[in-house]
Amino acid sequence: MASSQLPAEPVIYLVEPFGGSVRRQNPNMPHVFWDDAAVTRGDGVFESILVRGGAPVNLDKHLARFARSAALMGLPEPGREHWTRATEEAVADYCRERGGEAGVAVEAKCTWTLTRGRETTGVPTAWITVRPLPKEVLRQRERGVSVVTTPRGYAVDADVPWMREGAKTLNYALTMAALRWAGEQGADDIIYIDPGTGRVLEGATSSVLMVKKGGRMRTPAPGAGVLAGTTQAAIFERAERAGWKCKAKDIYLSELFKAESVWLVSSTRIAARVKRLDGTKLPAPGNESEIKQLIESALA
Amino acid sequence: MASSQLPAEPVIYLVEPFGGSVRRQNPNMPHVFWDDAAVTRGDGVFESILVRGGAPVNLDKHLARFARSAALMGLPEPGREHWTRATEEAVADYCRERGGEAGVAVEAKCTWTLTRGRETTGVPTAWITVRPLPKEVLRQRERGVSVVTTPRGYAVDADVPWMREGAKTLNYALTMAALRWAGEQGADDIIYIDPGTGRVLEGATSSVLMVKKGGRMRTPAPGAGVLAGTTQAAIFERAERAGWKCKAKDIYLSELFKAESVWLVSSTRIAARVKRLDGTKLPAPGNESEIKQLIESALA
Repeated sequence: MASSQLPAEPVIYLVEPFGGSVRRQNPNMPHVFWDDAAVTRGDGVFESILVRGGAPVNLDKHLARFARSAALMGLPEPGREHWTRATEEAVADYCRERGGEAGVAVEAKCTWTLTRGRETTGVPTAWITVRPLPKEVLRQRERGVSVVTTPRGYAVDADVPWMREGAKTLNYALTMAALRWAGEQGADDIIYIDPGTGRVLEGATSSVLMVKKGGRMRTPAPGAGVLAGTTQAAIFERAERAGWKCKAKDIYLSELFKAESVWLVSSTRIAARVKRLDGTKLPAPGNESEIKQLIESALA
Repeated sequence: MASSQLPAEPVIYLVEPFGGSVRRQNPNMPHVFWDDAAVTRGDGVFESILVRGGAPVNLDKHLARFARSAALMGLPEPGREHWTRATEEAVADYCRERGGEAGVAVEAKCTWTLTRGRETTGVPTAWITVRPLPKEVLRQRERGVSVVTTPRGYAVDADVPWMREGAKTLNYALTMAALRWAGEQGADDIIYIDPGTGRVLEGATSSVLMVKKGGRMRTPAPGAGVLAGTTQAAIFERAERAGWKCKAKDIYLSELFKAESVWLVSSTRIAARVKRLDGTKLPAPGNESEIKQLIESALA
């Protein structure tokens, strides 16, 4: 049987949180304990990384954000070399086993998870998964997404001393509720808007990128309600080299309707054009394929 | 070897989310998969229930809140009879195995968890654990707690259509951050306060109960930032029968300092008197043992 006909099982590596060994885990066996803080409290941090051509994409930015998340949450520092080596090992296994004859998987999704660990041991838990991209992600990347806007639902008080804005934690229950609500209206995704001002924040799991006339790109500046995007940052770096004028500054909802194009950018879906926003069609821009190429080249 | 000398292992039962069988799970083996929504998104709901004298305490109120949480999150309804029977079975096992010669464990903590389940199966995951009470819980119940106040950290917009106020989800990463911050100051717990008005909300995992002169008890009314407390409700019911005047209405921080006594009430710690609040000592009231007895009797 060719490997491409095997069920799309992930490759899982358990990672020693303080460095040391990694261990391949059978994906048909559970590995998370009933008293892991990830399970009981959503108390952990994660990163989703695109794998392309046999290698993780944008690795430095993910390592930096992962370390920032861990530091904010008081979790042990994920060692760069340790996680890089473990990721390379997991990706190599995945490509060898699932990459077909060429031995290089076209694309996959790699996820890093670091939790506060088991209550009974106090040792953080860490693991890496590498798995195929969901079909829906590929479809949305190809065809674009229909989006509804909604308030964030809560206003964060950044002055509170224990507040952890900017940490990419596992607490996504409300985000999932918002996405189910969007789905009930036939939409694929959401864009969070500050209800008082109409200021644009971010997608459910993506950054908003707006393309304007005159070769300009805009994204909301990271901060309250806006997580710094690794993919958005890579795109801006690439676009600036190609002569685009890129700025992270406030965007308002009314501007999205007047833009040349609006995109939701994230690690594995990369870029999905917003083709419908709150029921209004956003026509495809003349330079759609140019922008897609630019974005693709940013991840090379 | 007497069972009381065995390590304090939990009894775990895996529960079929739509009714049907339950299955004892070896607590030394993990049972949660890498792609369970509890692990990847904190997407699930839970209840913590005191076990006393061989039976779960306040079961009806926990069943009601668990069902409400599940409904709010779009999870399948946890059948009352199904969960009651599974809980009784798990508690019976625990008492038989850990209850010593009498066969009745003095106290234990039972936790129900219901998650959206594995991404690859779409079937919700559910389980019950029964385990000893942490020593720290018993110590705080006995000796009281030192508390610092802090803003909630975020203001929830209840008008947002997908907002799920009142669901007891697994998203406690920020609560844990707040508790770590309290610990750094030598405090045991926190009370959330609305920063603008000084209105008292709740503890990290408990309800605030204030005792005033003239046989009056107060608790903040459930709503934005205040989860309806099962233990608080049981205490009020009992106290009213004993002639206390009980009200759920707004309380302000300044009132806590003037009260006869302030308590954090929750299922397993039951009631811990706040003996220090933001560094100010709150002296023990003359009726401390009377109130402790009243609270105990509410859980009989």
